[in-house]
Amino acid sequence: MKCTVCREPAVIDIRRHNAYFCPDHFLRLCRDQTAKAIKDHQMFGPDDRVLVAVSGGKDSLAVWDILLELGYRADGFVIGLGIGDYSAASTQHARDYATGRGATLLEVNLPDEYGYDIPSGSKAARRTPCSACGLTKRHLFDKAAVDGGYDVVVTGHNLDDEAAVLFGNVLHWHTEYLGRQSPVLPARAGFPRKAKPLIRLGEREMAAYCVLKGIDYIVEECPMAAGNRHLQYKESLNSVEARSPGAKFDFYHRFLTAAAPAFRIADEDDTLSRCERCGAPCSAEVCAFCRLVERATTPQPVHLGPRRRRGAANTATTTDRSTAEGHAP
Amino acid sequence: MKCTVCREPAVIDIRRHNAYFCPDHFLRLCRDQTAKAIKDHQMFGPDDRVLVAVSGGKDSLAVWDILLELGYRADGFVIGLGIGDYSAASTQHARDYATGRGATLLEVNLPDEYGYDIPSGSKAARRTPCSACGLTKRHLFDKAAVDGGYDVVVTGHNLDDEAAVLFGNVLHWHTEYLGRQSPVLPARAGFPRKAKPLIRLGEREMAAYCVLKGIDYIVEECPMAAGNRHLQYKESLNSVEARSPGAKFDFYHRFLTAAAPAFRIADEDDTLSRCERCGAPCSAEVCAFCRLVERATTPQPVHLGPRRRRGAANTATTTDRSTAEGHAP
Repeated sequence: MKCTVCREPAVIDIRRHNAYFCPDHFLRLCRDQTAKAIKDHQMFGPDDRVLVAVSGGKDSLAVWDILLELGYRADGFVIGLGIGDYSAASTQHARDYATGRGATLLEVNLPDEYGYDIPSGSKAARRTPCSACGLTKRHLFDKAAVDGGYDVVVTGHNLDDEAAVLFGNVLHWHTEYLGRQSPVLPARAGFPRKAKPLIRLGEREMAAYCVLKGIDYIVEECPMAAGNRHLQYKESLNSVEARSPGAKFDFYHRFLTAAAPAFRIADEDDTLSRCERCGAPCSAEVCAFCRLVERATTPQPVHLGPRRRRGAANTATTTDRSTAEGHAP
Repeated sequence: MKCTVCREPAVIDIRRHNAYFCPDHFLRLCRDQTAKAIKDHQMFGPDDRVLVAVSGGKDSLAVWDILLELGYRADGFVIGLGIGDYSAASTQHARDYATGRGATLLEVNLPDEYGYDIPSGSKAARRTPCSACGLTKRHLFDKAAVDGGYDVVVTGHNLDDEAAVLFGNVLHWHTEYLGRQSPVLPARAGFPRKAKPLIRLGEREMAAYCVLKGIDYIVEECPMAAGNRHLQYKESLNSVEARSPGAKFDFYHRFLTAAAPAFRIADEDDTLSRCERCGAPCSAEVCAFCRLVERATTPQPVHLGPRRRRGAANTATTTDRSTAEGHAP
C-alpha cells in the first residue's frame, strides 16, 4: 500500500477518493480539503478572528489545529457541561492541546457560573439531555463570540455529522430545517456568523488526523447521547457508504447545490428584540436559555406517582434542531 | 394477540399502526387503505377502465384482487419477458389467478412478438437488464392501455418500493426524478394515466394479503435484479423502520405533501411527435423502445478482446428511472 501522491508507504486509504496516503500527504489533504470548504462557502477570511467551539473530541481539536496550521487567528472555547468524568476529561484535553500549542483557550464552567449541569438541569427543565445541551452550547458560543469580538464561531461538525443531520431532516422532511442546513450561517441580529469547515472530511479521517499529529482527544462518545437517533442515522449512512464509497459525500454536497435552494425561505426576521434578562437576541421577552436556567436551577416539587416525561418521544427533532442550526456537537 | 378491532384471535401485527388484526379485519384494512390512496390522490373513478400491470408477484396480484373486491373494472396484463423459468412461472401465476377469479388477462410474449428476451436483449443493446426491462414494460403497458381503450394503468408498487425509490433519488438528489415521483401521473400526449394504489401498504402486508386470500404468487425476486441498489435501499430503510415503526410511511407520505412541490417543474412539453416505426409518442424520430428492439434483435459482431460494459456503473440511476416515472416493478 503506497501513497498515491509520492509512492512512499501509505498509512490510510480513503475509499471515496480511491486513494492511499502517507502521513504527510494525508495531513496535507486534510488542510487542503478544509481550505477548499472555507473558500467554496466563503466562511471567513485571513483577517477574521475565529472562535473554535472545542469539546475535547477529535473533530473540534482537529479543526482548531488545521485552522492554526492554515494561519488563521483561531482561539478555542470550551464549556464545562458537568457531565461527570466525561466533561472533566473533555475539558482537560482541550487545555492540554492549548498549552502544547501555545494557543488561547477560553473557558466557561456551567455549574459554577450558571448553577446547573446537563444531567440534572435537563431533567429539571424536562428537556432531553441533547436538547438542553444544544441550547446551552448555542447560547454560550454566541455570547463568548460577541463578548470577545470574534467574527465567526467555528464548530467541528464533519461530513458524517452533517450527512446524518441531513438524513434525519430528510426522513421527516423537516423542510424548515432543510432550508437552514448550511455549512455557513451569516451573522444576523446579534448572532455571530457560524461555519463548519470540516464538511469535506469524515470522522475516520479526523481521528486519523489527531493520531498522526499526536493530538490527544477524548475517544468516548458523550454518555448521554448513547443510542440517540443521530448515531443511528450515521449507521444507516455507513452501510450505504460501505457499498458505494462516496455516497455520503455526494448525498450531503449535492444537497447543498441541487436541493437546498428549493427549501430556502425568505430572509428571516432581523428585527429580534433582546432578552430582558441576558440581553441576547430573541423573539420573546425572555430567551430560551434563560428559561432553561430558571427551570434548571429551581428546586423540583416531589412527585408521588409515575410521570410521563415530556418530549421523551421527540429526541430526533430536538437533536436535529440543535445541530441543524449550525451549532456544536 | 387479539384483533384490535374485534378481539378475535389476530394473525398479523402492524407495528406502524400499533395494532393487531384478525384475517377479516386485516383484509378490510388492505381494501380501506387502497381505497383511501385512490381517493386521496384522485387516481381513478368507478367508471374508469383499469389495466393492471401484472407480474405474477404478490403486489400486482394483490392490487388486482383488491380493485376487483372494491368493484373496479380491472383487467390484467402480463408480459412474458423471457427470463427463463422465472418468467414462465410468473406468467402462469397470473393466468391461474385470472382463471380462478374469472377475470380478463391480456398477454404479450416478448420473444414471440418482438424477437428478443431480457437477458440476451439487454446484453445486445448494452443496457443493464433492469434498464432494458423497465423500458420494455413501460412501452408495452402504454401500448396495451391505449390499444385496449383503458383509462389508467395500475402498477403494484407498494410503500416499500416507493420509499426505496425515494431514498435512491434523495441520496443522489435527482431533483428531476423527485419532481416527477408521484403516485399518480396524468395522461399526457398519448401516454395513459398511471397510478399506484398500494402506496399505503408495505410488502409484508401484501404477502400476508395473498396468503390469507389463497392467492398463489411467485415468491422469488427476479434473478436479474439480485443485489441491485433498489434492494439495498430497502434494507437501509428497513433498519430505520425497525427502530422507528412508521418512519418509512412518514418518509414517503410527508415527501408527497411537504417536499415534492418544491421539486415540481413546469408542465412538460405536451407536443411530442410520434415514433416513425411504432407510432408511440416520443421526442425523437424513433422511440427508445424501437431502438432497443433494433439493437436487441441485431446479430452481434464477435469481439476478440475484453470489452467494458457501457452503463455498468449506472444501475441505480436506470433502475430509479424505470420506477420513478411510475411504471411497473
